[in-house]
Amino acid sequence: MTNILSKLPFWGNLSETQKKYIEQNTIIRHYEKGSSIFSRGNSCLGLTYIIKGSIRVYINSEQGREITLFRLKEDDPCVLSASCVISQLSFETQMETEESCDLLIINSSAFRHITEENIYVRCFMYELMTKRFSSVMWTMQQILFSKFDSRLAAFLINESEKTNSMEIHMTQEDIAKQVNSAREVVARMLKRFAADGLIKLRRGNIIINDIHSLRKIGNGN
Amino acid sequence: MTNILSKLPFWGNLSETQKKYIEQNTIIRHYEKGSSIFSRGNSCLGLTYIIKGSIRVYINSEQGREITLFRLKEDDPCVLSASCVISQLSFETQMETEESCDLLIINSSAFRHITEENIYVRCFMYELMTKRFSSVMWTMQQILFSKFDSRLAAFLINESEKTNSMEIHMTQEDIAKQVNSAREVVARMLKRFAADGLIKLRRGNIIINDIHSLRKIGNGN
Repeated sequence: MTNILSKLPFWGNLSETQKKYIEQNTIIRHYEKGSSIFSRGNSCLGLTYIIKGSIRVYINSEQGREITLFRLKEDDPCVLSASCVISQLSFETQMETEESCDLLIINSSAFRHITEENIYVRCFMYELMTKRFSSVMWTMQQILFSKFDSRLAAFLINESEKTNSMEIHMTQEDIAKQVNSAREVVARMLKRFAADGLIKLRRGNIIINDIHSLRKIGNGN
Repeated sequence: MTNILSKLPFWGNLSETQKKYIEQNTIIRHYEKGSSIFSRGNSCLGLTYIIKGSIRVYINSEQGREITLFRLKEDDPCVLSASCVISQLSFETQMETEESCDLLIINSSAFRHITEENIYVRCFMYELMTKRFSSVMWTMQQILFSKFDSRLAAFLINESEKTNSMEIHMTQEDIAKQVNSAREVVARMLKRFAADGLIKLRRGNIIINDIHSLRKIGNGN
């Protein structure tokens, strides 16, 4: 456990007593794919660190509409899961595992205690929040300002570059979640792209046919 | 100037040398109402502190659509105006004075220098960003999830409570800016409210007639 804890940027700024205290208040927990990280009425887990797997962070409306804010992957720490420690925060996010996950968790009361005692831990927490702020702003600008065809094209290009392949293995449902739209809207636009010869549609699979044109749309041209 | 600087939360954590250095790199500048705080191509002014006046912080799309993120008033510090100092930030905001303003400005290179030297200043900067993050999330949730009638009603109630008056002295243009909508949409909804007997419309003036019903709409009922 200590070798994982020592990856936290503030670890070197802790006293020996503080290190021991944190070790005593840390657990490793396994989550299956698709689990909610917060159980109902318990939205303050503590500082988490992803040992393995990936997490989607989102907000949802009372009507159940979801907006994905950003994703976390291996070796990402997260303090939104310790939102009760951050008095400046007045919003709540949801977190869901996208793959099965192993999480390191420093419980929130211990984490709170250390943030009060140690300015470096406090600074780490706020710095990480600032980084997430930046991700969220990017997402919001995409949602508020991008035209949907451009957004979907940019998403396909981005997926293709990430996997270094012209085939995208995702269902329309999954794509809709990721681009914050409805499945029907995604299906319609994909059909248009296919009709224009930009992509080919297969079951659970999209093949990029004309990356040059798709990229132009993705860039808003 | 020092009596204003000493209102900054980190002032007590500076060495005498650092205090002097900041004093040498601080100016007070006056802005007329409606001025852009950033001039073109110079989006990194430094740490600002509002001595007098108020500022609207917003983002805009390439097509010129504006989204108001939050407002700053007297005695509010702002580090978004020093965005070049915050390496985690990858988005740019615009700032405009809503009234004539006197701003204290610590220039960005001096502010950067002090954030690198002093963990308390760094922590202050990130903590403030976290607070703004929270405001922005509130705004975004309003935009993404609220129905417009409810949003407009909530805005009118809020204005009425702020000024402690049943009369709201604002043009429809101003209201549209503040609720992130178009003037036409605001005009239409205000007419509907008036037809329902909730408000009375006067030139540049709205009088709340039935605050009870308006509040119900504002609460989404």
